[in-house]
Amino acid sequence: MTTENRKIGLALHGGAGTIAPDKITPELEQQIIEGLRQALDAGHQILIEVGSSLDAVVASVRVLEENPLFNAGRGSVFTSAGTHELDAAIMDGRTLKAGSVGRLTHVRSPINLARAVMERSPHVMMVGEGAEQFASENGIELIEAKYFFTEQRWQALERVQKAEAEARANGGTLVISDQDRHGTIGAVALDLQGNLAAATSTGGNTNKRPGRIGDTPIIGAGTYANNRTCAISATGDGEYFIRLVAGYDVSAMMEYSGLSLEQAANAVIDKIGALGGAGGLVAIDQNGNISLPFNTAGMYRGRVDSTGRVEIKIYK
Amino acid sequence: MTTENRKIGLALHGGAGTIAPDKITPELEQQIIEGLRQALDAGHQILIEVGSSLDAVVASVRVLEENPLFNAGRGSVFTSAGTHELDAAIMDGRTLKAGSVGRLTHVRSPINLARAVMERSPHVMMVGEGAEQFASENGIELIEAKYFFTEQRWQALERVQKAEAEARANGGTLVISDQDRHGTIGAVALDLQGNLAAATSTGGNTNKRPGRIGDTPIIGAGTYANNRTCAISATGDGEYFIRLVAGYDVSAMMEYSGLSLEQAANAVIDKIGALGGAGGLVAIDQNGNISLPFNTAGMYRGRVDSTGRVEIKIYK
Repeated sequence: MTTENRKIGLALHGGAGTIAPDKITPELEQQIIEGLRQALDAGHQILIEVGSSLDAVVASVRVLEENPLFNAGRGSVFTSAGTHELDAAIMDGRTLKAGSVGRLTHVRSPINLARAVMERSPHVMMVGEGAEQFASENGIELIEAKYFFTEQRWQALERVQKAEAEARANGGTLVISDQDRHGTIGAVALDLQGNLAAATSTGGNTNKRPGRIGDTPIIGAGTYANNRTCAISATGDGEYFIRLVAGYDVSAMMEYSGLSLEQAANAVIDKIGALGGAGGLVAIDQNGNISLPFNTAGMYRGRVDSTGRVEIKIYK
Repeated sequence: MTTENRKIGLALHGGAGTIAPDKITPELEQQIIEGLRQALDAGHQILIEVGSSLDAVVASVRVLEENPLFNAGRGSVFTSAGTHELDAAIMDGRTLKAGSVGRLTHVRSPINLARAVMERSPHVMMVGEGAEQFASENGIELIEAKYFFTEQRWQALERVQKAEAEARANGGTLVISDQDRHGTIGAVALDLQGNLAAATSTGGNTNKRPGRIGDTPIIGAGTYANNRTCAISATGDGEYFIRLVAGYDVSAMMEYSGLSLEQAANAVIDKIGALGGAGGLVAIDQNGNISLPFNTAGMYRGRVDSTGRVEIKIYK
């Protein structure tokens, strides 16, 4: 097929927050950059080989789910009960089909299960034991809960719980690093067929109450894709992204107000900030334009476009 | 306070589907109309007494949750496992705060729990055991699962499972009455302070897989409220309402395209139909305009406005 005037592109994030050079060792920074690069390469390779944007975003997300440095899959943060509850979602911009899963405790790759729900069930969203029952019937890998235990996340839980206890005792304000609080990873892509897709996966917030569902698996909030407009994956204070229907709002401002991807994506992050929330998102449109706005000190992020130029950044 | 040039209004639904006069006895029809009237009165009384739209929609939904004829609370349909899993959501158009609950098995009033999540937790959405743990800590009534057993819903499950088994055996198309398939109840209101609110509650679809979450508790899909635009509560094939972000789409077309409530609400139901879905919604705007579009044969619905005129209808 001719690809001369067609564009491809892929963007991903590995979480946004008060990421600052003095809070992260040069070694860790290098490992994070390397993790983002591997994820970007995995999705990019599929796009170059005329694969689908759906396959590309899943490939990128899979790499980050397996990497314990990111808050999704293997490296998921702990709930207040010392357990793990994972959420994920995927959306196909061509068909507007979507799959979403929440409160998983034994699924190695939540994004794989989200895709199975989209492709093999009559439902869009499944959570908890019912979702894991569906996983086992559909050959999605289940794994012992201890797989999700990582020492650095356990220490983060202890730090957050200590900070909350002190804040309660002093009647003071709670100050904890966003890095300890949340993460979330996700990818958006445009393929040579002109199809957009988005995928997001997360362990949620450190010390979240068991049962809490964030914006990641809410179609239109943390994950959205529509060939008419854009594909979006968000990270940050999920509750604000849900209340503002953030992902679909980017699309709606493009479709109904004629805003560019950049304008619409920035406008949504401004609204998140105005309501008191922190976070960011990655966005791509039909023309391969990419936008990566955030209102935090940093966001782990990477992008690659039709020229093959790769860009990976952490800070503003 | 002066109320002369201020408007109030409340609209509610008790489900949409292939409701036809020959499928429903005159006695049952009368009971349904009476149930809708009681729910309408409960919310309307609060608005007249200068109460809030939030209190009004909760009052209306509470009446329908307690009525076994409607698919929410007491009269919830069965899952494929012969169990009950209830969902609900509420949104405050003044603050854009929202509360949402899913996969409840022991909560008498899901809408009461959704409101508690909105007002007393840092989260928007909670599901399953974690949500019920939060309920017990916050004085929300828990009840034995057998409370949700009703003979007519059990028969509906048997009918649907028989129809599905026959369809599988014959390789034929599944034809089941929408009345057996779904329901969902909800209310939207405008109060004398000019605040909009929406509330929705449901047992989901008959024979749904355990773990399935529909559009009801998805903020922006089945439930949405924003003082700048409108309040929305939807009913029907939830998966289509999620994929189209139906509730927020009505709001977005009003805000960004300048459509009237009526135009935007009709446009969304047209999109649902074009994608292959069936259902309807109730909508109200800042000026007290009410719109009740649906693409099914009937929708249980009621409305009351500032003149005090009450209208309750089932068919087109």
